[in-house]
Amino acid sequence: MKKLLSLSTKAPEKFEKEKIKKLIPELSEQISDYQKILYAQSKYSLLVILQGLDASGKDGLINTVFHGVNPLGCNVKAFKAPTKEELSYDFLWRVHKAVPPKGQISIFNRSHYEDVLVPTVEGWINKTELKNRFEHINNFEKLLQDNGTVILKFYLHVSKKEQKKRLKERKTNPKKFWKHNDGDWETAKKFDRYMEAYEEVFKQCKAPEWNIIPSDQNWYKEYLVAKKIKETLKEMKLEYPGLEE
Amino acid sequence: MKKLLSLSTKAPEKFEKEKIKKLIPELSEQISDYQKILYAQSKYSLLVILQGLDASGKDGLINTVFHGVNPLGCNVKAFKAPTKEELSYDFLWRVHKAVPPKGQISIFNRSHYEDVLVPTVEGWINKTELKNRFEHINNFEKLLQDNGTVILKFYLHVSKKEQKKRLKERKTNPKKFWKHNDGDWETAKKFDRYMEAYEEVFKQCKAPEWNIIPSDQNWYKEYLVAKKIKETLKEMKLEYPGLEE
Repeated sequence: MKKLLSLSTKAPEKFEKEKIKKLIPELSEQISDYQKILYAQSKYSLLVILQGLDASGKDGLINTVFHGVNPLGCNVKAFKAPTKEELSYDFLWRVHKAVPPKGQISIFNRSHYEDVLVPTVEGWINKTELKNRFEHINNFEKLLQDNGTVILKFYLHVSKKEQKKRLKERKTNPKKFWKHNDGDWETAKKFDRYMEAYEEVFKQCKAPEWNIIPSDQNWYKEYLVAKKIKETLKEMKLEYPGLEE
Repeated sequence: MKKLLSLSTKAPEKFEKEKIKKLIPELSEQISDYQKILYAQSKYSLLVILQGLDASGKDGLINTVFHGVNPLGCNVKAFKAPTKEELSYDFLWRVHKAVPPKGQISIFNRSHYEDVLVPTVEGWINKTELKNRFEHINNFEKLLQDNGTVILKFYLHVSKKEQKKRLKERKTNPKKFWKHNDGDWETAKKFDRYMEAYEEVFKQCKAPEWNIIPSDQNWYKEYLVAKKIKETLKEMKLEYPGLEE
């Protein structure tokens, strides 16, 4: 595949913001409708994995796209730096606990992919360990898929420039102060190394395929992700179960 | 390997009950000593998987062998028929939650192997699904081993005759009434089919190797299992950590 840095982080010109923005609530409603059937049928589940650098807009995306979905059948799990307890288990232990049961949607805000990305960029892992982790991730995702879980993987692709702009805004907009974190500036310096680490992830863990989402504009990003989720739910051919006598 | 039914369920003649019985508390104490170091070091963990037919003596074995081990660092998990909640996840979900963290011993009284044995004997699973399950089990055990978990697998081998004797006792000895279950008699009828299913398990999931324990006599069974656990802990070269300044 192409180098990440050569991929656009913006919408192609033919997409008009005002037109596209109107489509998002519609898609979101369709997702909500499919989710009701998913829940009633309780045969399949959907796992949405969201990856992206700091300020790539994961939180906002979840709010917009899953707005209106019944929280009873939808669960968001944010993976932060592992706790001491979590570190006393294998790296997939905390992830496996959070997978969706049949009938549910789980959204991972970051995921087990952080456990290959961060150690790679920080140099905490050797080649053999990294290779093993990729293998364990592939096996783990296959286990879930064999059990009726559809996995959708999104990488929110922002430019270095846009990331800086957003991080700066967290220091000037009082509503975003709570998101400010000095550590993010340190991580941002490693932008190029993260791009390389992501390229390796896309190469090593490609079943199911990653969706690389140009994410400098929220409206375009939200549109693409919502559209993909809706299409995926549609392809699952969900059905309300018949009456059991 | 040899057919299970051709393997003895009893101690060879040279083993004398009275002599061997005296060795068990000694082994049990050594296990308890190693466990203290395992706990202090918190680098490795031990997973003991106990499989065997009804009345093969799993509960009693745990009591004898782990007598004296500090419960703080040792946890027994009994896997019964899956609950409705557990069935809404992949078959390894409930198992992964129960694996030992670093520094601990977990004992599985039955395990994920029931999820291949029962469906095979009952005819609930097709060949592809079964093959997938074996693969997932092997991958899962490799994940744990890569994380510093040593896995010990025991199959408690009882004869059809001894099993019947023990099941009968549950109907005559008031202290064992609580263990009596009509369903066990139904399962006992499938003895030969379970032997075949176990043979397939030993063939498909052989890393780490299974320990097949002749189990008609409690003293011999307990001795063999305790000895193997002690030797395994010894080979782990556990060490109290140095003083961190």
